[in-house]
Amino acid sequence: MSTLSPFEIQEIDQTVLMWLDELQKATMAAMNQHLDVATKHDARDLVTNVDKSNEQTINKYIRKFDPDAQIVSEEGFGDKPISMAGHVWFVDPIDGTMNFYKQHDDFAIMIALYIDNQPILGWIMDVVNNIVYHGGPQMGVFANQLRLYPPENDALNQGIVLLSGARLLYGMFGYDEIAKSALGYRVIGAAGPSFIRVLRGQAVGYSSKMMSWDFAAGQVLAKTLGLIVSDIDGKQLDMLSSNIVLVATNRAHRDILALHRS
Amino acid sequence: MSTLSPFEIQEIDQTVLMWLDELQKATMAAMNQHLDVATKHDARDLVTNVDKSNEQTINKYIRKFDPDAQIVSEEGFGDKPISMAGHVWFVDPIDGTMNFYKQHDDFAIMIALYIDNQPILGWIMDVVNNIVYHGGPQMGVFANQLRLYPPENDALNQGIVLLSGARLLYGMFGYDEIAKSALGYRVIGAAGPSFIRVLRGQAVGYSSKMMSWDFAAGQVLAKTLGLIVSDIDGKQLDMLSSNIVLVATNRAHRDILALHRS
Repeated sequence: MSTLSPFEIQEIDQTVLMWLDELQKATMAAMNQHLDVATKHDARDLVTNVDKSNEQTINKYIRKFDPDAQIVSEEGFGDKPISMAGHVWFVDPIDGTMNFYKQHDDFAIMIALYIDNQPILGWIMDVVNNIVYHGGPQMGVFANQLRLYPPENDALNQGIVLLSGARLLYGMFGYDEIAKSALGYRVIGAAGPSFIRVLRGQAVGYSSKMMSWDFAAGQVLAKTLGLIVSDIDGKQLDMLSSNIVLVATNRAHRDILALHRS
Repeated sequence: MSTLSPFEIQEIDQTVLMWLDELQKATMAAMNQHLDVATKHDARDLVTNVDKSNEQTINKYIRKFDPDAQIVSEEGFGDKPISMAGHVWFVDPIDGTMNFYKQHDDFAIMIALYIDNQPILGWIMDVVNNIVYHGGPQMGVFANQLRLYPPENDALNQGIVLLSGARLLYGMFGYDEIAKSALGYRVIGAAGPSFIRVLRGQAVGYSSKMMSWDFAAGQVLAKTLGLIVSDIDGKQLDMLSSNIVLVATNRAHRDILALHRS
């Protein structure tokens, strides 16, 4: 377990908020210039010069601030830890690259710190609106300076569920049954903006197949607010692998697991 | 055809912008209080006290400003015109009521004026961000004071397409093939916010089954920017009926029609 004092927690939070303030300005400036875009595994898996430069900046700052830590990050400038012992940072330098490139909205920068596999602090920055959702179990969750309180414990049929569009389209993970059972469903196309909607009570749940940098920050913040985070079978997430992640209110989580088992 | 002078066009636009300014404040205030919510045709077809009071306010203003006009509006305070002769106003007092009620975001107030079946002026207000997308063929399209220019003529596989979630989920209108052919797809859950994304070039197209108050304003603005608006078979929309509406860039429109015919 973490042995960080409240003072140490605050110092780490304030430090990362300073990094994010700098990255917000750089990202908005770059977005309005020419973006160099390349594909990774397939035509829909995009990376830009901003993904890479943001990750290099963040990882450089982490290595100076916390030299013994390991870093799990999306674009290849991190480490490949084989255990969650000690300090592990997760970095998604642009979450939702297609939204960043095509919509200029609904993307995020995400950072998280885990110590000995325990969630300590998470940061999800809504870059366009300049709002950082940040905090953890020792300090609570804030939208910039404003404290967030646990959302209503609504059931699946009382709320909106957010789903991965690609997996829904190809009939995977029972997403069609989840969508049919919900009051409504939406496809946002990025993890950070989807987690934010669940944290704020705009949606009762969200599910997608994700890598750990996609869900590490969201898991810290969601659990701190009393939301349930697991894989689609209800099991704890593996922080060193991809998972079919489900974050939801207690009631919606139960509703979705019941659908998935039936 | 309309015989309105540039001065008359400007006077109508400025008048409706004043109404929307008042409605924006009232809608935001009401959203943060208790909403009375009822269902209409089914459990997902919602109406609130704000839908009704906004429509009563707008229709009252229209009847005073343009006494001989007919009004087509969602919540029953309008007329039932049997022809598009003369002045016809279209009013959607809250477009995206589920988003309004559950997400407090991604909803709109929409108004449009047609004269002798010709699109004259349209207004789509993004209430939360306090931005009105307004204009028509005689004045161009503006986001508040900022002129919008025609978006890039991207093909379907170069951009994001927006689709009705319910119709996609139930395999209607070939939406699954459209989604698979696009670079990506998103489900926003409301017409106004979806039209806005197409007008701003964030999406290459949008399709849903809509009533005329859902698409009247969007059609005026989209056509003015050189986008193509038709039904899913490429035919002109019937303003006095529901339609499976498709708005898209020229290239994406051609791509989607080709898919739909195949």
